[in-house]
Amino acid sequence: MKDFNHMLEKYAELVIKVGVNIQPGQVLLVQSPLEAVDFTRLVVSKAYEAGAKFVQVDWDDEKITRIRYEKASDDSFGYYPKWQADMMEQLAEGGGAVLHIKVPDPELFRGIDSSKVSTAVKAAAVAREKYQAYVRSNKVTWSLIKAPTKAWVDKVFADLPEESRVEAMWEAVFQMNRVTEDNDPVAAWKEHIQTLKRKQEFMNQKRYKGFHYRAPGTDLHVRMPEGYLWLGGGDNNEDGNYFVANMPTEEIYTMPDRTGVNGTVSSTLPLNLNGRLVEGIQLTFKDGKVVEYEADSGREHLTSLLETDEGASYLGEMALVPFDSPISKMKRVFFNTGIDENASCHFALGSSYPVNIEGGTKLSKEELLARGANVSLTHVDFMVGSESLEIDGELPDGTIEPVFRNGVWANG
Amino acid sequence: MKDFNHMLEKYAELVIKVGVNIQPGQVLLVQSPLEAVDFTRLVVSKAYEAGAKFVQVDWDDEKITRIRYEKASDDSFGYYPKWQADMMEQLAEGGGAVLHIKVPDPELFRGIDSSKVSTAVKAAAVAREKYQAYVRSNKVTWSLIKAPTKAWVDKVFADLPEESRVEAMWEAVFQMNRVTEDNDPVAAWKEHIQTLKRKQEFMNQKRYKGFHYRAPGTDLHVRMPEGYLWLGGGDNNEDGNYFVANMPTEEIYTMPDRTGVNGTVSSTLPLNLNGRLVEGIQLTFKDGKVVEYEADSGREHLTSLLETDEGASYLGEMALVPFDSPISKMKRVFFNTGIDENASCHFALGSSYPVNIEGGTKLSKEELLARGANVSLTHVDFMVGSESLEIDGELPDGTIEPVFRNGVWANG
Repeated sequence: MKDFNHMLEKYAELVIKVGVNIQPGQVLLVQSPLEAVDFTRLVVSKAYEAGAKFVQVDWDDEKITRIRYEKASDDSFGYYPKWQADMMEQLAEGGGAVLHIKVPDPELFRGIDSSKVSTAVKAAAVAREKYQAYVRSNKVTWSLIKAPTKAWVDKVFADLPEESRVEAMWEAVFQMNRVTEDNDPVAAWKEHIQTLKRKQEFMNQKRYKGFHYRAPGTDLHVRMPEGYLWLGGGDNNEDGNYFVANMPTEEIYTMPDRTGVNGTVSSTLPLNLNGRLVEGIQLTFKDGKVVEYEADSGREHLTSLLETDEGASYLGEMALVPFDSPISKMKRVFFNTGIDENASCHFALGSSYPVNIEGGTKLSKEELLARGANVSLTHVDFMVGSESLEIDGELPDGTIEPVFRNGVWANG
Repeated sequence: MKDFNHMLEKYAELVIKVGVNIQPGQVLLVQSPLEAVDFTRLVVSKAYEAGAKFVQVDWDDEKITRIRYEKASDDSFGYYPKWQADMMEQLAEGGGAVLHIKVPDPELFRGIDSSKVSTAVKAAAVAREKYQAYVRSNKVTWSLIKAPTKAWVDKVFADLPEESRVEAMWEAVFQMNRVTEDNDPVAAWKEHIQTLKRKQEFMNQKRYKGFHYRAPGTDLHVRMPEGYLWLGGGDNNEDGNYFVANMPTEEIYTMPDRTGVNGTVSSTLPLNLNGRLVEGIQLTFKDGKVVEYEADSGREHLTSLLETDEGASYLGEMALVPFDSPISKMKRVFFNTGIDENASCHFALGSSYPVNIEGGTKLSKEELLARGANVSLTHVDFMVGSESLEIDGELPDGTIEPVFRNGVWANG
């Protein structure tokens, strides 16, 4: 790259202005891996320039996480420090923002007893339930973005010489986030979001009652709940400020009817489940619930996931991404949900987003369930898109029409 | 060094076993600069080996602190995130431990408006008042230790070639902490603590009513309160586990009578006040209160300190360290209170330690004041030791006898 520092600064400004859209007087929490120190300092600098009152960086070191799993006693993994949940709640209640610079090492927990990880993940989910409700109802402004770490680039760019992998990943990150040497990425994002909004409106007007997915290993019928809504791009927080929770984002997404899913679906990309890889997933649903499941590898991690709670065996989200999206065209598996989900149609096991149903953010758990939304401590995307994916939609009058053909929008 | 990694590991084990003395099931918080990442990982590893239930690392990056002071708006410095105080309180209430790996850059705030720093320091002190009470009464186990950072070694070892400064500092840190290639540092510390205990008992039996300090620029009378106690080495926490709050430590310390200090005292080493240097301090006391003060440089930082609250203008601690202590013999200014105070007799402006008076940990603020202890949001040591320092003690019967001569114990 001609001027790497200039590109990095543009990207830092983009995530502050478009991702979390920091307003004067706001408090920002940045969760960042130690390795991203230079980029993180730039982000903090841009946040203060945008008027942030205070920026706290919550640094993460995966080597220290790994040391815990190797050395702490077996009975200690149910412990979760309350103050971490308190921090997130206080931040949300004060109208703050969270920027997650997150790229978990896909191999972080290799060789670690899966039950330790599941216990810790569940303890964290229980402790952070209140905060997660704030997230789902847009009380807190948040954005999940990417920066290279060594473990991650070694996995994704294993075909390149070691010394050029970090730079290759930065180039990919810039490209998928529409940061080029001579553009204004903030303006480019505004245009991109308009495109997603148009697609979302088109789908919301159709009011499809249900969908039928077909691909090798996939034959799945999905019924939709009353008042479901397609969303995409970004959202307004409680104060009416627009933020983009995932960068990159190429999807439009909604919720299926919790008990209206039947048939079989096969994953088309590996799933990185908190540092544990699951490949070649096949799930069979009856009346919404997973009744059979297989995986070519990592099946035990899938078991842990499904056993989180009742809702973990039901779908909470469905999302459409054409197979010719910019990320998809890179023809690379990023072993990272936040990126791979934007290269591929996907579903999520676990909780629905209340924003995906009319009036949903005002509903209790029980009311959400009654409306067809799913409720769970977990929410995990898995990818089902491919160039052979066909999706039909059923209109309110019963007519069937093509929605996706050959993995892309049938209507262009 | 023959085997640096071996030395580093011995030091990590020492701070876990002697410094915070981690017990099975305890939670440990490690506050560490990003630069000390390798050492911090070793410390975490040793903590889990000692049975810690959970170790949280609270990383600090002074570059990010500096960015805040350069870029945040002037009216934002009174903000302190409540969750940081909550974390410390919850940790103490759960019987946890805190290891501070702390070496502030002596020049961190060069060129920054002093009022911003004072406002932030005071906001933090107010928010952390409850936690500080836990610290003073040994509810929380804590230890303050050292590790090299670039800014620090550049200041201290400016006379050495740049590439050898970090190693020189590690050598100094090992030496002042009694870690040698072939010893058992845990055993060496047990012996050292016994030596300090013997000196402490000797002084407690004397029951001096007051002291008279004499040196160039110093002529100070200090009256002692009823029931004052000399302490040194370490302390027992609430659960009866012995910990060492400062590593290194060479001092024995107690509290003067808040209103019994008269005369003038001059500092003999620069004071690093949260990243702001003050040199050549001269304080004049009347009935305990600072009534005049001067400094060769950084007088405005001293003003900020004295203006923290009423108690900031009174002494809270007096400590004795012979001028021939191992650190003193290195003949180097470390620009770090935790080290320099162990090379030199010193006083502290601000709060007393309730443990330094009989029954003190059970007393309210008002009762402490009535007993002659000082109460303040702040506690800042300044050094007064030198090879010319003479201290006389007044026995209960009025006899005057020498305590220090030529900067060292008069009685050997």
